Amino acid sequence: MEQYAAYIFDLDGTVYRGTEPIHAAIYLINELQARGIPCGFVTNNSTKTPEAVAEKLNGFGLDVRPSQIMTSSLASAAYVQEHGIQRVHLIGEEGLKEALTAKGLEITGTQPEAVICGMDRGITYEKIQQAARAVDEGSLFVATNTDRALPAEDGLKPGNGALVSTVAVASNQKPVVIGKPEPSIMHAALNAFAFEADATLMVGDNYDTDILAGMRAGLDTLLVYSGVSTRDEVSLKPEQPTYELSDLSHWQLKS
Amino acid sequence: MEQYAAYIFDLDGTVYRGTEPIHAAIYLINELQARGIPCGFVTNNSTKTPEAVAEKLNGFGLDVRPSQIMTSSLASAAYVQEHGIQRVHLIGEEGLKEALTAKGLEITGTQPEAVICGMDRGITYEKIQQAARAVDEGSLFVATNTDRALPAEDGLKPGNGALVSTVAVASNQKPVVIGKPEPSIMHAALNAFAFEADATLMVGDNYDTDILAGMRAGLDTLLVYSGVSTRDEVSLKPEQPTYELSDLSHWQLKS
Repeated sequence: MEQYAAYIFDLDGTVYRGTEPIHAAIYLINELQARGIPCGFVTNNSTKTPEAVAEKLNGFGLDVRPSQIMTSSLASAAYVQEHGIQRVHLIGEEGLKEALTAKGLEITGTQPEAVICGMDRGITYEKIQQAARAVDEGSLFVATNTDRALPAEDGLKPGNGALVSTVAVASNQKPVVIGKPEPSIMHAALNAFAFEADATLMVGDNYDTDILAGMRAGLDTLLVYSGVSTRDEVSLKPEQPTYELSDLSHWQLKS
Repeated sequence: MEQYAAYIFDLDGTVYRGTEPIHAAIYLINELQARGIPCGFVTNNSTKTPEAVAEKLNGFGLDVRPSQIMTSSLASAAYVQEHGIQRVHLIGEEGLKEALTAKGLEITGTQPEAVICGMDRGITYEKIQQAARAVDEGSLFVATNTDRALPAEDGLKPGNGALVSTVAVASNQKPVVIGKPEPSIMHAALNAFAFEADATLMVGDNYDTDILAGMRAGLDTLLVYSGVSTRDEVSLKPEQPTYELSDLSHWQLKS
């Protein structure tokens, strides 16, 4: 197997499961960093700041800085800024608000140039209405991600895909989607981490998000069967990941 | 033109616009009732009770009883009852709660046999989650209607189609839809009013809901251009309404 100059890891299902670390992943990431091979992390979760994500990872025994984290909120903020947008309206929680503010974007309900919809467990009819009206009146419609459900141990939790659909149906418009499986979040990560796509390996547990996003952004991919995808499902896909492993303890680094 | 034994009217855009009566419709309905030709009314609005709808109509100078009103909530209650269901969970407002209770259905969050989703301007993440979980666990998924937006004079108001989509996306299931353009609400109306489909005229302003629902339930249809649809749009439809008029004052009854 090839040697990669850098690695990007998905989080839930790859590095941890809910509140439990996946030890083989923690070991591999520490080993890579000890060898000077940089690691970054991408997550569709739009509610957490990179500081909160780094703190969670460091609680599992990693040594990660917030600058190594790319969330769908940070990637959305980068996307609208690259498109010359200055005035934005949002549905979302702290992670999205902070990401937009940190880029110097003005958050306003009055004639925003873009509406950015992220996960918001405080969703209301009024929030849906305000966002749908802005989109109906011509604002760019951006979704941080469209995950149908959240990873959860105690039953189905609707994901941002369920919430974004309200604005999409009411306004009769489709959003630009930033999160995996779309490549925008990978482009934002490569750019922020200063990694080259053709020298970076994308590692994830979910074919339909992590692996597709990696492929679409031109990265080699490693699918690990520690989370969502199963070998039987993946064997039916037209395009296969570059590598697949039952467990990251089987990934060998050159000595 | 044929003589019809009974008439069914849509409401918003046909009998009134928001808070303003459409005088030609009021005149026609009063004239029909004076001649002993029975009239009924169908509305996708799931939030109002038939009493509230009748009161609004009577405020415009009609003489209508609640038993002449079929709402998407009443039709949904009839639908689940006909399917042998006794235990239901709902998202919705007063009109839906009353309709289900009046049919003797038990409203419960615990192992409901059906989840009925109507318009709810008090929607929350918890309500979406509870409904999506019940559907995910096998409850029949019923939507009173899937209107994208509500009729409104002061800008876009998301309709129940926008809210139902949350449960549909999260649970990855499509609902059984009761309201127009589906024929269920028309079957419920014909049954409740004791009208025969082939002797009844459906009158509405919206081709894509009123006229399609009438056609699908086997009624002749009269499209009046006093609301949503325009002659240019409708001229492109593969199936034309039986009659079309710019205004109901042009509808002539046999003397």
